[in-house]
Amino acid sequence: MGRAKSWILKKYFDGFPKLSDFELKEVDLPKLKDGEVLLESVFFSVDPYLRPYSKLYMKEGDVIIGSQVAKVVESKNPTYPVGVFVVSNSGWRTHFISDGQGLFLMSPDWPAKLSRSLALGTIGMPGLTAYFALLEICRIKPGETVLINAAAGAVGSVAGQIAKIHGCKVVGCAGSEEKVAYLKELGFDEVFNYKTVKSLKEALQKASPDGYDCYFDNVGGEFSSVALEQMKKFGRIAVCGAISLYNDTVPQKGPYIQMTMILKELRMEGFVVSRWANRKDEGLKALLKWVEEGKIKCHEHVTAGFENMPAAFMGMLKGENTGKAIIKV
Amino acid sequence: MGRAKSWILKKYFDGFPKLSDFELKEVDLPKLKDGEVLLESVFFSVDPYLRPYSKLYMKEGDVIIGSQVAKVVESKNPTYPVGVFVVSNSGWRTHFISDGQGLFLMSPDWPAKLSRSLALGTIGMPGLTAYFALLEICRIKPGETVLINAAAGAVGSVAGQIAKIHGCKVVGCAGSEEKVAYLKELGFDEVFNYKTVKSLKEALQKASPDGYDCYFDNVGGEFSSVALEQMKKFGRIAVCGAISLYNDTVPQKGPYIQMTMILKELRMEGFVVSRWANRKDEGLKALLKWVEEGKIKCHEHVTAGFENMPAAFMGMLKGENTGKAIIKV
Repeated sequence: MGRAKSWILKKYFDGFPKLSDFELKEVDLPKLKDGEVLLESVFFSVDPYLRPYSKLYMKEGDVIIGSQVAKVVESKNPTYPVGVFVVSNSGWRTHFISDGQGLFLMSPDWPAKLSRSLALGTIGMPGLTAYFALLEICRIKPGETVLINAAAGAVGSVAGQIAKIHGCKVVGCAGSEEKVAYLKELGFDEVFNYKTVKSLKEALQKASPDGYDCYFDNVGGEFSSVALEQMKKFGRIAVCGAISLYNDTVPQKGPYIQMTMILKELRMEGFVVSRWANRKDEGLKALLKWVEEGKIKCHEHVTAGFENMPAAFMGMLKGENTGKAIIKV
Repeated sequence: MGRAKSWILKKYFDGFPKLSDFELKEVDLPKLKDGEVLLESVFFSVDPYLRPYSKLYMKEGDVIIGSQVAKVVESKNPTYPVGVFVVSNSGWRTHFISDGQGLFLMSPDWPAKLSRSLALGTIGMPGLTAYFALLEICRIKPGETVLINAAAGAVGSVAGQIAKIHGCKVVGCAGSEEKVAYLKELGFDEVFNYKTVKSLKEALQKASPDGYDCYFDNVGGEFSSVALEQMKKFGRIAVCGAISLYNDTVPQKGPYIQMTMILKELRMEGFVVSRWANRKDEGLKALLKWVEEGKIKCHEHVTAGFENMPAAFMGMLKGENTGKAIIKV
C-alpha cells in the first residue's frame, strides 16, 4: 500500500505558533478492508479555530485537526466510488482511509467552473458561518447597518456580501490597503484600515454616524470594546471569532461591558456553526446559488504544497490572506 | 395651597453618592386647574438604577427621579377622584400636581391585606423585571439551574421565587448571613455569602457541579467574569444590573469574554423592563396571584421619613436592605 504524510502537533502552542510546534511524519497505510476507501487530499483549509481548539481537541503527538477536499483513489465502498470528491474533517494528512463515516460527498453537479476548494470556504463551513450568524443571530433586516471586522477574511468577506444581498449597509474593517481595496470591490459601503486610522472610535462613527444595528465580531478584545459603544439600542452582536485573543499567554483585559449591555439593551451571542448542522443543505444551496449568480464573489489565498501547511496557517493568523486561505497539495 | 418638599440633585454623583449631593427644598404648590389632581406621596421606592441614570436623565438642580405610591388628596379630574391611589414616576416629592398623564391607577381590588408599597416592589417594576427577564431573556425551563446574585434584593428575591415556581434549581448569592438565611426561607436551593467564601469559583462549582443554564446578573464586573466560566453550553445571561460598577470613577477592567462566549455558545442580553410595557398587566396579574397564593413571599426594608431618602438610597446601594427598599413618608 501507499504511504501518507501527516502534520503532527509536536508541542502545544505557547503564544503565537512556531514552526517547531509542528512535525511532518510519514506512515505506511494498511490494505483496505471491505467498506473502506482510500482518499487523497486535494485542498486543505486552514482556519483560525485551530488555534483555540488546539488545546481542547488535540494531544501532543496527534495529527493536526482540519478539513480537506479529498478524492477517492481506491474503494471497497460502493457509496464512494473511485473518482468522487468528498469534504472531510480528517486532519492534515495527504492520504487517509475511511469507512465513510464523516465523509460529506460533493454533489456530482458541482459546477465545472467553480474550484472544489470553495467547498472549504464560501460554499462550506466559513460561508455557512456567515449565513447562519447573520440570519439567526443578528437577524439582519433591510436598511440596517452591519459592522464586520476581519472583513477580508474567509467568513467576513462572505458575511458582508450576504448582508448586502439582504439590503443592509455594510461597514468593513481590515488590516491592509490591499484588503480595503478588495472590500470596496465586493461592494462594502464603508471600509477602513483599522491599523492606520487615528482613532477606531472616530472611524466607526464616521462610517455610520447613527451607529450599528449588528456587529459581526471576528476579532474580540479591544476592537469589540470600542465597537460596543457604537451600537444602536437593541443592537445584536454575533461573536464568531476572537482572533485578537487566540495567542494570549496572559488573558487581556478590557472594561466590563455590563453597563453598555444594559443601557443599550444589547444582545450578544457566541456560536459555533455546527449548531445548524441540520440546516447545512439549505445554507450550502443558498451560497452556491449566490456564487453562481455572481452576487457573492470569492477570493482565495492559495498556498501550494502540503509541506507549507504550518506556514500557511501561521500566515493566516497574521492576516496575510485576502479571502479564504487554502492549501493546494 | 399647600407646600411640597422635594429632594434635589445638588451635585452630580462622583463615585459613591454623598449626603451633600442632595438638597431638600420646599416650594409652594399652585392652585389646581381643571383636569388636574393634587397627590400626596405615601411610599417611595429607591432603586439601583438611579445611580447610573443620574447623569443620563438629570441635570444638577433637578428633582431626583424615582417612583412612588401616591394618594389623590384634591381633584379636578374625574378619572382620579380624591382617595384613590396611583403609582407614578414623579420623583422625590412629598406632593405633586398632575394632569393624569403617567399616573397608573391602582386597582380598587387591591387586597386589603397587602401593603400598597408592594406596587413598587414585588408587584411592580422590580417584580416585572424578574418576571420578563426569566421568561423572555433566560427562557427558563423546568429542571434548569439558575444563578442569581444580589439575590436578597428587590429583583433577585422575586427572580429566585419565580424560577422555583417554574421548576428550576436556584442558586443565590448575597452579602450577609442574614440575607443568606432569608434566601433559604424563600426556598432557594443553594445559597452562599459571596463576601465570606474563600473562592467564588469554588462556591459556584459546589452549588452546582454541572454548571448553570441561566444567570440572572444584577452585579456585573468580577462576579460575572467568574460566573461566565461556570455556565453550561448554550447558557443564557440576563444582564439586569451592574451594581458593582455603578460607582466607578475609572472603569474597572476584567478579562475579555469573547472566547468564553464562543466556546460555550452563550447568549447575553442587557435589558430594561420598559421594553415589555405592553405586557405590564399580564406580569402584574401573575405576580399578584403568586403573592396571594403564598408562592412568592415579600420582604421590605422600610425607612421612615421623607427626610431620610438619601440615606435610604445610599444604604440600598451598600446592600443594607434585605428585600425591597421602601421609604414610608
